[in-house]
Amino acid sequence: MTFLTKLTTSQQTNHSWLCIGLDPLMERLPEAALAAEDPLLLFSRAIVEATADLVCAYKPNLAFWLAEGPAGLRALQDLVASIPDIIPVILDAKFNDIGHTAAAYARAAFDVLGVDAVTANPYLGLDALRPFLADEAHGVFLLARTSNPSAPDLQDQLAGDCPLYQQVARLAVEWHAGHPGACGLVVGATYPAELAHLREIAPDLPFLIPGIGAQGGSPEAAVAYGPTANGLGPVINSSRDVIYASSGPDFAEAARTAALTLSNRINQLRARQ
Amino acid sequence: MTFLTKLTTSQQTNHSWLCIGLDPLMERLPEAALAAEDPLLLFSRAIVEATADLVCAYKPNLAFWLAEGPAGLRALQDLVASIPDIIPVILDAKFNDIGHTAAAYARAAFDVLGVDAVTANPYLGLDALRPFLADEAHGVFLLARTSNPSAPDLQDQLAGDCPLYQQVARLAVEWHAGHPGACGLVVGATYPAELAHLREIAPDLPFLIPGIGAQGGSPEAAVAYGPTANGLGPVINSSRDVIYASSGPDFAEAARTAALTLSNRINQLRARQ
Repeated sequence: MTFLTKLTTSQQTNHSWLCIGLDPLMERLPEAALAAEDPLLLFSRAIVEATADLVCAYKPNLAFWLAEGPAGLRALQDLVASIPDIIPVILDAKFNDIGHTAAAYARAAFDVLGVDAVTANPYLGLDALRPFLADEAHGVFLLARTSNPSAPDLQDQLAGDCPLYQQVARLAVEWHAGHPGACGLVVGATYPAELAHLREIAPDLPFLIPGIGAQGGSPEAAVAYGPTANGLGPVINSSRDVIYASSGPDFAEAARTAALTLSNRINQLRARQ
Repeated sequence: MTFLTKLTTSQQTNHSWLCIGLDPLMERLPEAALAAEDPLLLFSRAIVEATADLVCAYKPNLAFWLAEGPAGLRALQDLVASIPDIIPVILDAKFNDIGHTAAAYARAAFDVLGVDAVTANPYLGLDALRPFLADEAHGVFLLARTSNPSAPDLQDQLAGDCPLYQQVARLAVEWHAGHPGACGLVVGATYPAELAHLREIAPDLPFLIPGIGAQGGSPEAAVAYGPTANGLGPVINSSRDVIYASSGPDFAEAARTAALTLSNRINQLRARQ
């Protein structure tokens, strides 16, 4: 199955464009999880079990697992293995390295951790992305416009006739067309106008949209400009608002309630389109 | 001790600007190493033991260790711990992520793995770099001009009055001045003219220069434009030419010979300046 077919299927089966970011910080875990032998794994697995019928994807960010060393990486591997096969997993690692090094990262992500897609940074150009685009079962979401305050430092630099992040989208359109793997874009929901521009430039590219919730991003813009021309929905990510919905022993149920509220809100906006 | 003092000291003590990239690929290891319980660790440790008096730094690239999963990350942790304290270790991970995620990466690098500095990608702007610049014992080398064929895709885009990679250097000058940690630049030796431009823009920034050897980069340009205005030498990296100098049981001695040849060549060029 291609990555895009898997994503389409999970969106339809769960009637959801919501993605949950599995980004557990040890110091924010509820006591109920800290008591376990492997707190990150117990916490994240409980959230997956409570939400697997509500999401179109999960997005663990490598940083939070790497911060716990080899045991953290093992926990991430076990977590990915425990996610139901129907739900695509996108490893948020923002990979960027040259030729044979990029190939080693692709092996780490697709073979060792077993995820379906990754995020990557476009600064090194196409040859740094080829290993992630090599087969149709996998995909890569390229950073175009990120959701952080310093994003304009480079991304808004005028490159020729348009800001750099729009150049990235133009290149991604070529790269998507020229490879078996799917090439999508990461576009922060905190910049609705930029989201609209990018959808114009890249009508067919899947969008991963972070920044909903804690970061103040707009679900309205994500729903308006997120879908591709042929109807593939965006992957709209929320992390902290969902996974830290409660710091009590009911953290998993609270995460389910938060995810349901967010997914319902997205679906209401879809119904109005 | 600050990171830059540690680097200055190792350059003076070993009379060397050479850095060895510790990038072991399982399929390229000599049989002598493959027989060990932990081949990546045995191989890399043997190379460190054979070369620790010839280098100013070591640069393990995270990709090659991550490709072996949790055991690989454990091996990297053990390897870093075994490198003599006098030699700075630069983790080549090209980090790029926002606020609290960048902080988790900094913890992974500086606390869990115990390295002195990292490489990072500038595409997300300053707030993605702050955790790496937070104290003077650590540093970050920002990608400016990389050594791969697709580097021009984005890096040569005209941003205002100059190519994007030069804008990165201008920003890095500000960021270096405004933070306790050192902010340097990664500049591929495969582009001598770009190296010269960058040294003009950023006379005081430490340079990490990869691409010598297998990638065809010029040691002449690295020596000519690598040093800062006040005489801190560049970190000139070679990986494959050194670590794979022999595929036989003499791989560590062969790595020493290759490192010595390269370091002598660099020192001869320095003497002619």
